[in-house]
Amino acid sequence: MTASVHSFDDAIALSRDELGNFHGRTTPAYRNMIGPFGGITAAVLLNAVLQHPERLGEPTALTVNYAGAVPDGPFRIVAKPVRTNRSSQHWIVEQWVLEDGQECIATTATVLTTARKATWAGSDIPAPLTGGPAAGITPLRFAGVPPWFEQFDMIPLTGAIPSQWDGQEHSDSTSRLWVRHAAPRALDYCSLTAACDVFYPRIWLKRALRVPAGTVSMTIYFHANQAMLDSTGTGYLLAQAKGQEFRDNYADQSGQIWSQDGSVLATTHQLAYFKE
Amino acid sequence: MTASVHSFDDAIALSRDELGNFHGRTTPAYRNMIGPFGGITAAVLLNAVLQHPERLGEPTALTVNYAGAVPDGPFRIVAKPVRTNRSSQHWIVEQWVLEDGQECIATTATVLTTARKATWAGSDIPAPLTGGPAAGITPLRFAGVPPWFEQFDMIPLTGAIPSQWDGQEHSDSTSRLWVRHAAPRALDYCSLTAACDVFYPRIWLKRALRVPAGTVSMTIYFHANQAMLDSTGTGYLLAQAKGQEFRDNYADQSGQIWSQDGSVLATTHQLAYFKE
Repeated sequence: MTASVHSFDDAIALSRDELGNFHGRTTPAYRNMIGPFGGITAAVLLNAVLQHPERLGEPTALTVNYAGAVPDGPFRIVAKPVRTNRSSQHWIVEQWVLEDGQECIATTATVLTTARKATWAGSDIPAPLTGGPAAGITPLRFAGVPPWFEQFDMIPLTGAIPSQWDGQEHSDSTSRLWVRHAAPRALDYCSLTAACDVFYPRIWLKRALRVPAGTVSMTIYFHANQAMLDSTGTGYLLAQAKGQEFRDNYADQSGQIWSQDGSVLATTHQLAYFKE
Repeated sequence: MTASVHSFDDAIALSRDELGNFHGRTTPAYRNMIGPFGGITAAVLLNAVLQHPERLGEPTALTVNYAGAVPDGPFRIVAKPVRTNRSSQHWIVEQWVLEDGQECIATTATVLTTARKATWAGSDIPAPLTGGPAAGITPLRFAGVPPWFEQFDMIPLTGAIPSQWDGQEHSDSTSRLWVRHAAPRALDYCSLTAACDVFYPRIWLKRALRVPAGTVSMTIYFHANQAMLDSTGTGYLLAQAKGQEFRDNYADQSGQIWSQDGSVLATTHQLAYFKE
């Protein structure tokens, strides 16, 4: 890695072999507590589709299933266009890793890419605020957190990580924050994907208890076209997520990502495991 | 089909061949304008996983991608457990159909099944109302609609299909309705899946314009355990969906399904195509 390569581009870098397999590897910059940050795994699976010579159109929907641990080291991605229509294409993607010397699937994804045209546009989810962080506000720097946190500038607005793990239940599990790459990098579909997973587990906020928890499935609907990505550039994103139901080891959340000027870039949902 | 088989069970019926393929066929009762109702397709793909001899646990997450038309007639479903852990299992499912004499993929799905345990439970999405339809209210009977509508009792509460297609835009695209099988049938994971797709396209409500539209991807998170399904039985479900963003041929919605007594049974999201 040379100084000119952004840590994000380094983490999602792939090479393609003569059989059409994509090869990548985990990087220390995006380590989470166990394995890589889920957002970087989602981004690298999407990147395999984006790099595929048969791809038609831009990312429109993505579902990623975190099926097993991704160990430090190399991995292989198989991205297969299973159905190509006139203006849409459906993909099945698998991430294979080595576990005890045996290759197995760690992550699966389905991707929809489409050639979109301008249509009537409207929204039922106006941005709760616009304009970026208030003047003089600097990103939070956390102590004792996994490396991936340091790759992002985050400015919590509501629903910050509880400062006291006192088990006092919260009526509302909404978090809202400004977020961008810590080292400037223009937004693209891969980094928008990663931004959809910057939220800490909703169960921690809901219960003010730090129980073991982790994402098992995440879905993203991409609303941003290339012009909207370009106009967002290196600016902050407004990211919001709210827990919905918490029961029997699993909880889901619903989220939205807006640009600084209030455009909806993506909506996202996820299901997370929790213990106890 | 004998008189004792419910139309829903008939529509999701599968046989399994010696190679492990599942075989089913479309039924007239669940026809939509083009091909079958999306909810019945989702249900039959889930049913293949439920019927699979290697299945571990109950449905927890499901994403269905409607990749191409499902013609009237037979289809083949391949359900593959791609990763089995101690208490969770990840599936990739494909529905193959005949198109011009050639077999091709019409639908894909990923499914997560898990062995769940009772944990702390909480909710951020209280039911907007409980108790079932008001006394004396009878289900709406529609004229000139596809057959699948007649398989359900529906009682719109808000956001009913516009009676005038006048192009007057609505500020809010929320629909809420009571829904159940028209012929009594106890709720299970397959019918809960179908219930997640009973909403007409949000773009019709948002714009009061009946533009061509159809679901391309749907995700369901199952919160109901077997006891909750059993206690719901043949009762009504409260189903709610709200459009989020409408842009460049695609719009997404976020939805919830409650039991009559206000328990969250499932949360669901979908992306729909629309023209113009």
